Order: sequence, then structure tokens, then C-alpha cells
Amino acid sequence: MPLSQKDLSTSLKMTPRLFQNDIAKSRNKSTFIMTPPTNYSRLSLNQYTTFSWNVEDAVKGCERAGLPWIGLWRDKVAEFGLENSACVARESGIKISSLCRGGMFPADSESERQKRIDDNRRAIDEAATLGTDTLVLVCGGLPDKDLSAARQMVYDGITAVVPYAQERGIKLGIEPLHPMYCADRNVIVTLGQANDFALQLNAAFPEYQMPVGVVIDVFHVWWDPQVFAEIQRARGIIFGFHICDWITPLPDVLKGRGMMGDGWIQLRKFREAIDAAGYDGPIEVEIFNETIWEMPPDKVLDLMKKRYAREVM
Amino acid sequence: MPLSQKDLSTSLKMTPRLFQNDIAKSRNKSTFIMTPPTNYSRLSLNQYTTFSWNVEDAVKGCERAGLPWIGLWRDKVAEFGLENSACVARESGIKISSLCRGGMFPADSESERQKRIDDNRRAIDEAATLGTDTLVLVCGGLPDKDLSAARQMVYDGITAVVPYAQERGIKLGIEPLHPMYCADRNVIVTLGQANDFALQLNAAFPEYQMPVGVVIDVFHVWWDPQVFAEIQRARGIIFGFHICDWITPLPDVLKGRGMMGDGWIQLRKFREAIDAAGYDGPIEVEIFNETIWEMPPDKVLDLMKKRYAREVM
Repeated sequence: MPLSQKDLSTSLKMTPRLFQNDIAKSRNKSTFIMTPPTNYSRLSLNQYTTFSWNVEDAVKGCERAGLPWIGLWRDKVAEFGLENSACVARESGIKISSLCRGGMFPADSESERQKRIDDNRRAIDEAATLGTDTLVLVCGGLPDKDLSAARQMVYDGITAVVPYAQERGIKLGIEPLHPMYCADRNVIVTLGQANDFALQLNAAFPEYQMPVGVVIDVFHVWWDPQVFAEIQRARGIIFGFHICDWITPLPDVLKGRGMMGDGWIQLRKFREAIDAAGYDGPIEVEIFNETIWEMPPDKVLDLMKKRYAREVM
Repeated sequence: MPLSQKDLSTSLKMTPRLFQNDIAKSRNKSTFIMTPPTNYSRLSLNQYTTFSWNVEDAVKGCERAGLPWIGLWRDKVAEFGLENSACVARESGIKISSLCRGGMFPADSESERQKRIDDNRRAIDEAATLGTDTLVLVCGGLPDKDLSAARQMVYDGITAVVPYAQERGIKLGIEPLHPMYCADRNVIVTLGQANDFALQLNAAFPEYQMPVGVVIDVFHVWWDPQVFAEIQRARGIIFGFHICDWITPLPDVLKGRGMMGDGWIQLRKFREAIDAAGYDGPIEVEIFNETIWEMPPDKVLDLMKKRYAREVM
């Protein structure tokens, strides 16, 4: 007996719900029942994840893997050439999710602080040439023991570059780093603090539309009892979302990140919270890890896609 | 001409102020002008700082160095014997500032969580036998990815041991650990969170006088933008104060602590803030560092005293 229009409509309405249950079951039991093709439209390769590749290798790797986004690093871009990098990305159609990194504002003399500001302006120019809209800021560590003063230098440094960035169409994303990097890399150590800075800076520049925001990397913020409240507070100023995992024992302070699913972070919970806060941009996989760096990079992209599908979406 | 009583009194009032200036100058210029003997009445050796020593070695080392306090560890106490440890300390007159450590509450089954609670009760008995009034709690890491659930297990675990501790005269000091230990050692990662737990637990046990408090170790909390506000909030529930330093590059995730003055922490600022919050108890030096462990322990105590005088008091 053929289905009536009403039956058909009920059936169509039911299917997705049942489907979700199946997916949930398949996740829990690792029994494959039925799964939709994962949508990779937000997945971005931060090029440090495939450290041995130059910009062109990485762009072509993304093409082969069907990844629409790539996050670039200034040192890699300089190595391959700024114009060449821009050209390779443009021709491939791969979009550049962000450029890492500006920042590093605190220094122990006025002249050195000015040099850092000048370098940030160069980073902004590079970002504009590459055609990305986001410069990630790793704000810098301590020139001396005065942590409050260093934080003020960060605030003043960002203030000094906001107009320059806005004139070139570049948004500045403050990335809070894990507190273990507070002394030597970044005195901005919580999402709450990054939100405070971004909101205060935006209020200081009413002539621009949200020139400063935050970049949320799960590795740096996952431990924070306030993080989900701060994700909500960041609505409208989330300029980037980076993923990897926290593995134990931590292999290395700097190169200790794990592949998604190999560690302790509730990645899907973060992705859902960040989605719920209105962010629908690229999701960058950024992993510094010697073992992953030794893998054939195409295999890393393959694994990355699988884990993104299983752990994040 | 002899000084009048008024002159004398003015002179007596003036001296300390001038004296402070001299000390400040001597600190800045490292020119020795005049310095009072440092008061070591609060200085405590956490015995892990001199890792090669057993309890008796450490107690005798404190006697030789004129240190009035020692902080003991359960494994070292077990190795030397509980009664022997208690006896050696009692006979020396060295007071035990705290016993490390209880905690480690989260586990993936009810029965395993009960084992942890039982072990905390044994730790409380040991603390009572040793004659200290404080058990330091390192609350434990993740049994699985559910961080909120692990934090609830910590809360429930402490709840389960409060009456037992109170009946034996033992206070429980929650020590927030650095966020880099969140996965494997302690899901309590900020002083704010430790304060929340302690205040809520104390409210849950109105029959006792502040059974739960916090232990503040600068290594774990120095990076926190909220830490000085939280120190003020901890007034009345600060049960311990641990010092060392944060050195860069961090030599090791676990054994990476530095001697006071070798790193980035504003130790005097912390000591003054903690004093101002009403704490006047022992100040424990707790350093896990292979290089320091290889030094002759008497020399470590010597250096510790010098740095305590120069950097903390």
C-alpha cells in the first residue's frame, strides 16, 4: 500500500530523529549502523600540524584532502615568500582561516616595544596580502616580574595597532594561552581575560565594528571552570576556534599536543558551545607534536578528518 | 648634648622608617648597608625539597639550620615509620606545618571512590598521630572526560571525610594545582575554585569551625589574573602557604620548580597579600627539581634561608 501524503510527511519528519539516535548509538557502541557523510566545510589545517610541509605543500595537501581552509604561520609564509604564498592559496581556492601570529607586545624598553608594534603592522600587511581577515595575537610574556605591567603593555600594544588593522580589513584575535606559557609566551591566560581585553578595546574604538575578538584553542582553555560561561560572553567576538587534544603524560611543554580523541578534552561539548555562541567559522586543527610531525603529512590529514568527524561534529 | 625624651621618641619613631629605606636600597643596589637578622619563625621545609633525606634526616637538617617547621609527605613518613616520624619530630621540637597529601577522590567506580575516601581517613589518622593540624588535599584528576563530574566527585569526597577529620582535630586544605595538572592530578585548578569549594563545604557543616580551607602555592596560582582578589576572599580559610619559583624554560612538567628568586614570581607581593588576608602561619618551601635534589641538602637549606630573607620577607 502506498504511503499517503500525511504518512510520507510523518515519515520524513521522523527520519532525522531516528537517524540521530542511530548516530548516537553508533558512537557509543562503535557499531556502524548508518552515518551521513561528514561536512568538512569548516575544517581548517593549521599548517604547523604538518610542520615538514611548506606553504605550497600544505595548500596542495588540503586540496587532495578536500579541506576548504588553511591557517598559515608567518615564518612559513616568509620562507616560501609572501606573494608566492598568496598566489598558491588564491589559485587553489583554499581560503586562509587566519595568520599566526602577531602579538609579543611586552618588552623592557619603549624602543623595543615600538619595534614589536612595527612588527605587528607588518603582520597585518602580510595578512591583508594573503587575503585572510584574521590575525591571531599571541600577546607575549614577561620582560620582568611585573605581570600587571606586562598586561598593560599588551593592552597598549593592541591599542596601537587597531586602526592600522582596521584600515586593511584585518580583525585581531586575542588567543589566551595555557597558564604554563604565562612567563615566556603570553600573559593572557584565560578566556575571561581575553574577553575583558577585547570588550574594553572594542569600547575604546566605537568607530570600528568589533576590531578585536578572541581565538579559542581548546588546548589552552579546557581546564577553566569559567570557560563555558566565557564562551557565551564571547558571542559576536569569536574570531577563531582551534582544536587538538590534551594528552597525558604531556610529552613536552611546547610540543605536547595530541590528536583529537587521544586525550581528555570534551571536544564536541566545546564545538557545540561555540556554535551556540554564534560562531560558524572555520575550525582549525593545530597540533605541535613530534610524533605527528614524523608521520606522512597526507596521513595526518586523513586521520585529522576521521577524528574531526568522530570527536568534533 | 643628650637627647631629650621627645627627641629620643622622635628618633625611635624615625629609625624604622629610615631603616626600611636602607633595606630597600640595599635590595636594589645589592649594596649592603644594614640589615636586621631575618626572622625564620615561619619558615618551613617541605621535605620533598630535600628529596634524598628521610624524615629523621630532614628533621635534623631543620634543627641544624634553625628552621622551626617541617612539612611531611605520607610516602616518606611510611618509609621511616609513622610512630618513628612522630617521635623524631616531637623530640626535636620541630613543628609539622602540614602533611601532604590526601585527596585523589575521582575514580570510575563507586567502590574505587570509597577506597579513596578510606585512604583519606588513613591520611587523617596519620596527620593526627604526627601532631600536625593540616592535611593538604591534592584532589585528583580525571577518571574519564567528564570534568564536571570529576569536580563533583571531589566535592562529595571531601564531604565524606570532613566529620572524621574534625573529630581528630585535622583541618583539610584544598590546594589548587596549576592547570597543567588538571587531567592527571587535580581538577581544582584555581584559587577561586578552591575558595568556592571550601566556602560551600564550610556552609554545609555549620557544626564545625571552618573545617575546610585552601593551601596557596605560588607555583600553581601566580599566573591567575584573579589571584589577589581570591587571596582576599580566602581570609580566614588560608591553611597553608607554599613557595618556590616559576623558572623558564620549564625544566619538567612535574619536577620543574625553581628556587625562590630564580624565576618570575613576585614572591614578596604574594607574601604581603597573604599576610594582609590574615594568615600568619608557616611558609613552606616546596621544590621538586632534580638539580636541587642533587645538591647537598644542608646547602639547599642554606640557600633556601638566604632566598627567603631576600625574596620573601
